Amino acid sequence: MTLFSSLTPVFIAIICILIGVILKTNKEKEKHETKSKPVSHPWVDEDLKDGTGHHLEEEEMDGEWQGLEENVAHVPFSVEHYTEAEMIKRSKMFYELLNKRRSVRFLSDEPVPREVIDNVIRTAGTSPSGAHTEPWTFVVVQDPYLKHKIREIVEEEEEINYKKRMGDRWVNDLKRLRTNWIKEYLDTAPYLILIFKQVYGLLPNGKKKTHYYNEISVSIACGILLAALQNVGLYTVTSTPLNCGPQLRVLLQRPANEKLLLLLPVGYPKKDATVPALTRKPLEDIMVVM
Amino acid sequence: MTLFSSLTPVFIAIICILIGVILKTNKEKEKHETKSKPVSHPWVDEDLKDGTGHHLEEEEMDGEWQGLEENVAHVPFSVEHYTEAEMIKRSKMFYELLNKRRSVRFLSDEPVPREVIDNVIRTAGTSPSGAHTEPWTFVVVQDPYLKHKIREIVEEEEEINYKKRMGDRWVNDLKRLRTNWIKEYLDTAPYLILIFKQVYGLLPNGKKKTHYYNEISVSIACGILLAALQNVGLYTVTSTPLNCGPQLRVLLQRPANEKLLLLLPVGYPKKDATVPALTRKPLEDIMVVM
Repeated sequence: MTLFSSLTPVFIAIICILIGVILKTNKEKEKHETKSKPVSHPWVDEDLKDGTGHHLEEEEMDGEWQGLEENVAHVPFSVEHYTEAEMIKRSKMFYELLNKRRSVRFLSDEPVPREVIDNVIRTAGTSPSGAHTEPWTFVVVQDPYLKHKIREIVEEEEEINYKKRMGDRWVNDLKRLRTNWIKEYLDTAPYLILIFKQVYGLLPNGKKKTHYYNEISVSIACGILLAALQNVGLYTVTSTPLNCGPQLRVLLQRPANEKLLLLLPVGYPKKDATVPALTRKPLEDIMVVM
Repeated sequence: MTLFSSLTPVFIAIICILIGVILKTNKEKEKHETKSKPVSHPWVDEDLKDGTGHHLEEEEMDGEWQGLEENVAHVPFSVEHYTEAEMIKRSKMFYELLNKRRSVRFLSDEPVPREVIDNVIRTAGTSPSGAHTEPWTFVVVQDPYLKHKIREIVEEEEEINYKKRMGDRWVNDLKRLRTNWIKEYLDTAPYLILIFKQVYGLLPNGKKKTHYYNEISVSIACGILLAALQNVGLYTVTSTPLNCGPQLRVLLQRPANEKLLLLLPVGYPKKDATVPALTRKPLEDIMVVM
């Protein structure tokens, strides 16, 4: 810690920030990619096949690894310190706000200010990510033709899925089928946000560079996105369209290193919107204190 | 939609809610588990090995599938509709708040009100989840002895990890090693939150029931948790301790169906805390509008 108590790093920091401003993001990425190469070990590649096995130390998860490995200077960090009363109040209000969130599949076509969409995606982009790779692409679809093409692709796949299921189920499924495989909101929602995870990057030498934990990182960013949407009164239904990833990737002209993680139709609930009468687990069922 | 415009479902809804209140959560889970059994298909089990391949329709992702499948009534849903000016202001303020978030590894031992921790975890529990399984367990460790045991386990594994890496790297790594494998914050942070994903549940007949998309669901919940922490001025460093999952699971007495996803030390930054001088990608690098 004595290292940081001296003033030297502050000067280094100022210089680094200036350099940072000059360097283009992709320049930085290249630099970072080259540096993180040694991290690629057989066990890592193995683990990439299985999200449950692969572990990564926090420096990669939150970007500090990169910071330390590349000797990126550390800069002093001071934050707002709320009183305990303020903290309790803020935590309660935020819980009450987010507890009103429900997945809504009945979305109106009422337009939504584009500036709000920009801000909620900016907010999602503040998420931590493995090795600070920020491995996410948010494709915002507002074009009615494209939205309808997406609907056609999703509904066709859903139909196949439900018909497969019919093999297993014999009792009054028809109503459920009708209800489920029609995705009107893909046409009506003013925006469809398709979130792609960048599963690898490209090194200057053209070799693939694994993005460790890209799925966890992008999912965390989506959690922040859902909070940002709820904060402005916009609703969505979290969806992972069955088997549509490759078709949608091609339709939206995303590169091969990007895979669809989630599709979020975004808008206001319809006047007559409904949600299933489901409850959430109480705190004692999700928290253990030791 | 005519189905919903009639009053009948409202009565059904009221009855369902009453039943919901009477039923114990685990009772509901049993019911739900039995119902979702037919969903288990070979392709699903296959996909569970690979987070990138396995797709799931939104009903499972957001709980509506369960709602429709079990004929859980749909209840009317009305929400607060902000003016466009309010939405833009709220979206900007939330972005500015979350953009101040940084991963902080220098955490003070200043105590944090337990009520705040309860509320941020309640907030994380509002996350959507595949088939509304809510497959998360938040283990909050405040006991100094347990925190130190966790530190010992994590540091031992980190040391092994860094020594492994030495095979690949020959130049001045010693400083980096020293810097990285000591995790003082695991002792100093007033709380360590270890987030476990429940990879399967148990059916009444004792058979395992896959929790689809448990990793994505729990990661989304963690994104909401990070937003809730930032909202009250608490800091953390997102970490996935290398290979420590099994040992920590045993130490914290979690069942075999739970796997450690993340470890978040939570507290206030130290007076002399520093963060690496890293920048975030600009909006145009993470968003594509079509």
